[in-house]
Formats: sequence, structure tokens, C-alpha cells
Amino acid sequence: MAGGDGNLLAALPRSLEAEQTTDLIANENLRIERIVSTGQASPPGFWYDQAWSEWVLLVAGSAGLLFEGEAQPRVLRPGDHLLIPAHRRHRVAWTDVEHPTVWLAVHFG
Amino acid sequence: MAGGDGNLLAALPRSLEAEQTTDLIANENLRIERIVSTGQASPPGFWYDQAWSEWVLLVAGSAGLLFEGEAQPRVLRPGDHLLIPAHRRHRVAWTDVEHPTVWLAVHFG
Repeated sequence: MAGGDGNLLAALPRSLEAEQTTDLIANENLRIERIVSTGQASPPGFWYDQAWSEWVLLVAGSAGLLFEGEAQPRVLRPGDHLLIPAHRRHRVAWTDVEHPTVWLAVHFG
Repeated sequence: MAGGDGNLLAALPRSLEAEQTTDLIANENLRIERIVSTGQASPPGFWYDQAWSEWVLLVAGSAGLLFEGEAQPRVLRPGDHLLIPAHRRHRVAWTDVEHPTVWLAVHFG
């Protein structure tokens, strides 16, 4: 699945060694990607710290997203979306181990 | 539901006089919006002709999207996404009359 047309839920792997990321749209100012997780989490102690903003939609499955300074991960279910401002440190605490988790990530700014 | 955080499937209206559009992200270069349709279609003879690109994801429900010059609308189901290049004329031929149809639209470039 590459390019702008397709189905986010098609050809979902059941089990992956690492998260699978596919660019759907990529240009100078914008990247839209599908990410599939099958139980992966960020490595212990690792924090994302991005110079750009990211808007995330959880499409299928479930996940826990931890922001630095918060006591507990935010639990994301299908349809949940949130904005991660630039340099807001965060990590994926967990993803569903039973079903594939599909994320839509829009990187911009 | 406004701003970057929320759930696309929350507080879905059962029936609307007109499509409901909510900005989730809006800045100079990018607009992400949720659109809810409850059976609406584009007016007869109306074509969208936009000066910018639009990437569309059908999140729930179903719809028919007709591109000018194509014989039949493309039928969109949950997870289906497509890129509508700038000035590619298109119209919404139909949306589900039984269940709310939720679109995610990313306008850019």
C-alpha cells in the first residue's frame, strides 16, 4: 500500500518484529503515514522529541501513549485523536497484543 | 468536539439538515476536519473544484465519490482513503442513509 489511495485496514500483518510504517502522503510540509503495531512499545527510557507537530488518530486496536510529566498513559481507542505539539516528549507505553493497532499520523509544521 | 484532541466517532448526530464540518487542526498550510454526513450528497450538477489538494479517509459509514470523467462513483468503506489533487473535479454522489458517515479530510498544499 503506497500513495494516496488504498485502505488503512487492508493487508494487516498479524505479527511484526518492528512497527510497520507506510508513507501515504509525503511532501516538504506534510507527511501522512500509516503505522501498524502488534504489541510493540517504545524502548525503555526512550522518548520521542520531534521538531514538528504530529496529529495522531487511532484507527484500530488500542494503545497507551505517555506524555512526559503525566502519571499514566492516555489510553487510545478507535476514533481517538490527539495533537502532539513539537518537542512535547512522549512514548508509546503499550499497544494491543491481541489485535493489530493501526495509527494514522499526520506530521506537519 | 474542537481542537486536536477528541474522538471522531463521539457524539454522532443521527440526522442532519446539512453536513456537519468540524475543524480539528487549522493553520496556514493545513486543515484537518471531521465531516459527518447523514445521507447528504452534493447538489445536482455541483462539482468541487479546489485550488489545493485533499486527502480523504472514510472512517465510518459509506459513500460514493464521483470524479469527473469517471462512469461510476468510487464506493468508499471504512478505512478507504484517496487523494484528490487540486482542481480534480469531484462530487459526493451519495452517503449512507442508515448510519452516519464520518470523513476525515486533510486539506493541504
